[in-house]
Amino acid sequence: MGTREIGLPQRVPGTGLPARVTIWEVGPRDGLQNEKAIVPVAVKLEFLDRLAEAGLTTLEATSFVSPKWVPQLADAEELLAGLNKREGVRYPVLVPNERGLKRALEAGCPDIAIFGSATETFAQRNLNSGLEKQFEMFEPVLAGANGLNVRAYLSMCFGDPWEGPVPAEQVVRVGKRLLELGCTQLSLGDTIGVATVGQVEGLLAAFADAGVPADKLAVHFHDTYGQALANTVAALRCGVSTVDSSAGGLGGCPYAESATGNLATEDLLWTLEGLGIEHGVDLDALVKTSAWMAEQLGRPSPSRVVRALAG
Amino acid sequence: MGTREIGLPQRVPGTGLPARVTIWEVGPRDGLQNEKAIVPVAVKLEFLDRLAEAGLTTLEATSFVSPKWVPQLADAEELLAGLNKREGVRYPVLVPNERGLKRALEAGCPDIAIFGSATETFAQRNLNSGLEKQFEMFEPVLAGANGLNVRAYLSMCFGDPWEGPVPAEQVVRVGKRLLELGCTQLSLGDTIGVATVGQVEGLLAAFADAGVPADKLAVHFHDTYGQALANTVAALRCGVSTVDSSAGGLGGCPYAESATGNLATEDLLWTLEGLGIEHGVDLDALVKTSAWMAEQLGRPSPSRVVRALAG
Repeated sequence: MGTREIGLPQRVPGTGLPARVTIWEVGPRDGLQNEKAIVPVAVKLEFLDRLAEAGLTTLEATSFVSPKWVPQLADAEELLAGLNKREGVRYPVLVPNERGLKRALEAGCPDIAIFGSATETFAQRNLNSGLEKQFEMFEPVLAGANGLNVRAYLSMCFGDPWEGPVPAEQVVRVGKRLLELGCTQLSLGDTIGVATVGQVEGLLAAFADAGVPADKLAVHFHDTYGQALANTVAALRCGVSTVDSSAGGLGGCPYAESATGNLATEDLLWTLEGLGIEHGVDLDALVKTSAWMAEQLGRPSPSRVVRALAG
Repeated sequence: MGTREIGLPQRVPGTGLPARVTIWEVGPRDGLQNEKAIVPVAVKLEFLDRLAEAGLTTLEATSFVSPKWVPQLADAEELLAGLNKREGVRYPVLVPNERGLKRALEAGCPDIAIFGSATETFAQRNLNSGLEKQFEMFEPVLAGANGLNVRAYLSMCFGDPWEGPVPAEQVVRVGKRLLELGCTQLSLGDTIGVATVGQVEGLLAAFADAGVPADKLAVHFHDTYGQALANTVAALRCGVSTVDSSAGGLGGCPYAESATGNLATEDLLWTLEGLGIEHGVDLDALVKTSAWMAEQLGRPSPSRVVRALAG
């Protein structure tokens, strides 16, 4: 048709937005652990290297959770041993408990993440713990990780499949406790993807009121109800400048009835590009990488940008 | 798993947003004209009736464009003759030109929409006209439609596949001209889905600066790059309170490399519900309708909300 290739959006800066956003790429961990397929370690290593090559500087590489629960990431040691660690790139790993921390430290990881819950029921069911009891589990991890970067994921910050809506005060209380225990960053997760923009602004205002600065916070949206990008923009307006996303929207399946993937990194990049917010990533290289990974998984990418540009 | 059904998001109102939004449902027209399948008229009639039953009050029913160009809507007369018109529901139809207007008037439609272009190339290629010349085409239509509601679609308001970025001043100039010709509402279309939130705010500010009140404007986003909902929220913040969307995201295909569907009405409703903005639609009934229509089309709905709730 002779149409002109539009590879990037027009730049029209917004007001009151951060000048630079750090993308915390969770595709290799949160994405792949939610895919049906078990991806060979060689493919994961190529994936991680291509993500770094595209300019992403924070790559959550894997998880030291029990292989019984997450067989998709059972190869954590092998993966880390084979990793081509690049200058200027962080490769944090998820550790669920002390045993996970031990494995991470033995593998030479200076950058870890723990996984907490904002609700009682999820803490019981997913962490085999409780809303208060989880801190006992994290204390020795944080003691052992003294001096490391320790991100805390806080799950179910907006809605919980058993409890329904989650009060902002409860999320702030649990989040502050994790920061007091020594966590260096909180990632506020909408694990089931139900949040809308007013709720996001409300929770971030509650954190600000409680004296937690926005630079201690990251946001982590799943696109289950199509709200992930709108919610992310709302968070940027509130001063948050670390955003979790997964390349190609990994972890969601376009065929599945319920698509529960993370916000796609490419769809986020399109917004950041348009707003003139610095991000350091080569969109074209990332789209090619996600299209390649979709081939490995044998299904199209749920990222709209990948589908629009990779054709 | 005994999880609690979350059918609606938590209500947390935002600030500076309209109290009520009118959804201009374009699924039966813009949606179906972009589907490969030609849907039988009986199915379309059931679809329209179910949309009205769900509470939608503005249903763009069909188009009087030449069947040669849009065979999907070749049954416009038959459809309108069979329509179960409900009290309080508007059934606007698209008319491309005088001949289309004549067909619409003969079919008893008091509510029409014309289809203009914000760019020279699209006006030439799609309207067989030109950026200035299009007004000559619309003048007799508007004269003939004296006293009717006449919405003007303005295509390519943010980016054009041939020309690239579209200057806001150009869009405002063409838009004002259409209002001066007698159009009662302008629907600003991101036909290729490239816009981001800053650009949306910029264009709406330019219309405000030119003296066009927000209540003369509607927004019409396609989700090609995943930006439709974030852009819609940006428009709501600018005071726009009429939003175009298509039930189930009709017109986009989850399998296609390039998904060019409209914003899904259900994904919009999720946001409006969460923000406590009045809309008058029963989400559950709409989800069931879109799931049914997806079955008719033989493919899953691209709406995330439909996929999450219809399972």
